[in-house]
Amino acid sequence: MEIRIKTEKPYSVYIENGILSKAGEIIAQFRGKGTKVMIMSETNVYRYYGNKLSECLKKAGFNVSSYVFIAGEESKNMKTVMEMYEALTENGFTRSDLVVNLGGGVTGDMGGFAAATYLRGIDFIQVPTTLLSQVDASVGGKTGIDLPSGKNLVGAFRQPLCVICDPETLKTLPEEYFIDGLGEVVKYGCIYDKELLFELETGKALKNMEETICRCVDCKRIYVEEDTNDTGKRMILNFGHTFGHALEKLHGFKDLSHGRAVAIGMLMAIEIGESMNITKKGTSARIEALLKELGLPTKDESFTFEQIIDATALDKKTFGRNINLIFISEVGTSLIHKIERNYLVLRCKIMEQQKLRAGL
Amino acid sequence: MEIRIKTEKPYSVYIENGILSKAGEIIAQFRGKGTKVMIMSETNVYRYYGNKLSECLKKAGFNVSSYVFIAGEESKNMKTVMEMYEALTENGFTRSDLVVNLGGGVTGDMGGFAAATYLRGIDFIQVPTTLLSQVDASVGGKTGIDLPSGKNLVGAFRQPLCVICDPETLKTLPEEYFIDGLGEVVKYGCIYDKELLFELETGKALKNMEETICRCVDCKRIYVEEDTNDTGKRMILNFGHTFGHALEKLHGFKDLSHGRAVAIGMLMAIEIGESMNITKKGTSARIEALLKELGLPTKDESFTFEQIIDATALDKKTFGRNINLIFISEVGTSLIHKIERNYLVLRCKIMEQQKLRAGL
Repeated sequence: MEIRIKTEKPYSVYIENGILSKAGEIIAQFRGKGTKVMIMSETNVYRYYGNKLSECLKKAGFNVSSYVFIAGEESKNMKTVMEMYEALTENGFTRSDLVVNLGGGVTGDMGGFAAATYLRGIDFIQVPTTLLSQVDASVGGKTGIDLPSGKNLVGAFRQPLCVICDPETLKTLPEEYFIDGLGEVVKYGCIYDKELLFELETGKALKNMEETICRCVDCKRIYVEEDTNDTGKRMILNFGHTFGHALEKLHGFKDLSHGRAVAIGMLMAIEIGESMNITKKGTSARIEALLKELGLPTKDESFTFEQIIDATALDKKTFGRNINLIFISEVGTSLIHKIERNYLVLRCKIMEQQKLRAGL
Repeated sequence: MEIRIKTEKPYSVYIENGILSKAGEIIAQFRGKGTKVMIMSETNVYRYYGNKLSECLKKAGFNVSSYVFIAGEESKNMKTVMEMYEALTENGFTRSDLVVNLGGGVTGDMGGFAAATYLRGIDFIQVPTTLLSQVDASVGGKTGIDLPSGKNLVGAFRQPLCVICDPETLKTLPEEYFIDGLGEVVKYGCIYDKELLFELETGKALKNMEETICRCVDCKRIYVEEDTNDTGKRMILNFGHTFGHALEKLHGFKDLSHGRAVAIGMLMAIEIGESMNITKKGTSARIEALLKELGLPTKDESFTFEQIIDATALDKKTFGRNINLIFISEVGTSLIHKIERNYLVLRCKIMEQQKLRAGL
């Protein structure tokens, strides 16, 4: 399936089982005056798919080189980006050459950022190989790296030339990463697609991942098209992320993965929403059950609500004393609500007391 | 004088003697939801104007902090940018806060790049204090830093909210930097404004720097408006720069300044142009005389034409084997000409032989 993302500079997301072997011909249509391609990838993914991608790009007439970094979020920093720049200059890359990012969110974000800033921007293609990046990170043109003080604090907006998404690569993805990606899939169900959420509950969604990914990408498309630079409606996609990012930060970006953090963050937002009569009663119970069924966490015992709210202070969606928080009124319908940080702390304390009283 | 730059996101360049003391009120009109301003500056400039700018921003109601780095091109690297990010996160800067770059090209390029990439982009204001940055670097939205292998190899396009240019700051600029800036002023005369070139020859241009800067900025405006992302006509502004950058590179970005390198580069382009019958005969003699009069160099004995051409290989304007070179047909009229690198080397060799024969 081809999903066309109509941002200022439109591009296509190709989603199809086995499409990786056609990557050469797809990318060949974007060949400009340059003939060079640099594959940016990491050790785990490159081992499985590096040669395959490299060979089919060579067959399509490209001059192919690679830069492979050590897999993991710990590599998502400026040091690795500097090595990417070095690889590009050493191979004489000009503005008419291409970068192809093969891997998960770390690869796509970081390789995208390197491409977006090398020579003030050269073109790149995303080839996401994890569920998280297939349904989320590879679409939307957000690129970035982490700073010691926070995740994705440095970055740029730049749309890829296209996204080539092969659901079959999920076969080599370790289960813990697959489950992690389901956190974002649940998010799309919550904010927009109640049928998807239902199919997650029945198990149908997991049996046809090609279709599930298409549904998620199509949902993301709607928000990205309306708000490319993330100043308005696109914030909806941040459902569960304000608290999720804060949790990742509190865990030093180490022992809590993104999708799991988002799962906990979504449930927090739903619980707060119910307590404020924004969200339909019973929603938190339903989502909690689904998250458990999928193997995702539902709470984090290590930190209090207050600590989590404090840790949101440097979130990009935070303006001064207020937080723009995303809620759902019910499964499939979302809204943005601006809340004072202090009120949020108070509300959470009341909520915790209510829970205690209810003997939960 | 206010010159309006009508790029996608329009902004104004305010040029006026003494305008620095009004910076607070000018910047106050851009205050968003945030009230924080970070002044990015370097040791030399901050000593003269840091407190003045800081005080007038405070008077205008801003919460002001500063990051000051060691003056010089050697600081224009990712290490300094990382320290800028750190200063921004430590002071809790969000997307609604502002960066103000006070200084020359290094400060504006680097502070602009930090702002363009921090949280995927926050707004910034340019307060250029060198002639080079007043007539060139602060207008056009190019931001960037150097890599070990070349100048400005990393960067982003992002327009400032406005530019505040006070020609009186030139009084504290060391003469060698002032002369350096004249290299770019001569460029505007060559490519577009033959009257400006004439006034440089008569000395009138140096007596009224406010007007001279206005003429240069207005010339840059025309090219930037037509081609914000530097893929077409804006290349004209690169007159003298292809060879100039190569020379700076050959000198390790150390013992040859930008304006001086551009001066030599312009004369090279004019000489090649005359030899190819693109440029009116006698132009090189005229420009050579002017450059000497202004204290600018006219040649570099350390490197051959071939070495200089070879060093252009990583220039951003280079596509594969060809160079897009900027020529003038006569003073005030410019054109882009695509030349094969090999042909250029041959042409230069013929030219050098002709010079030898003519006993020059």
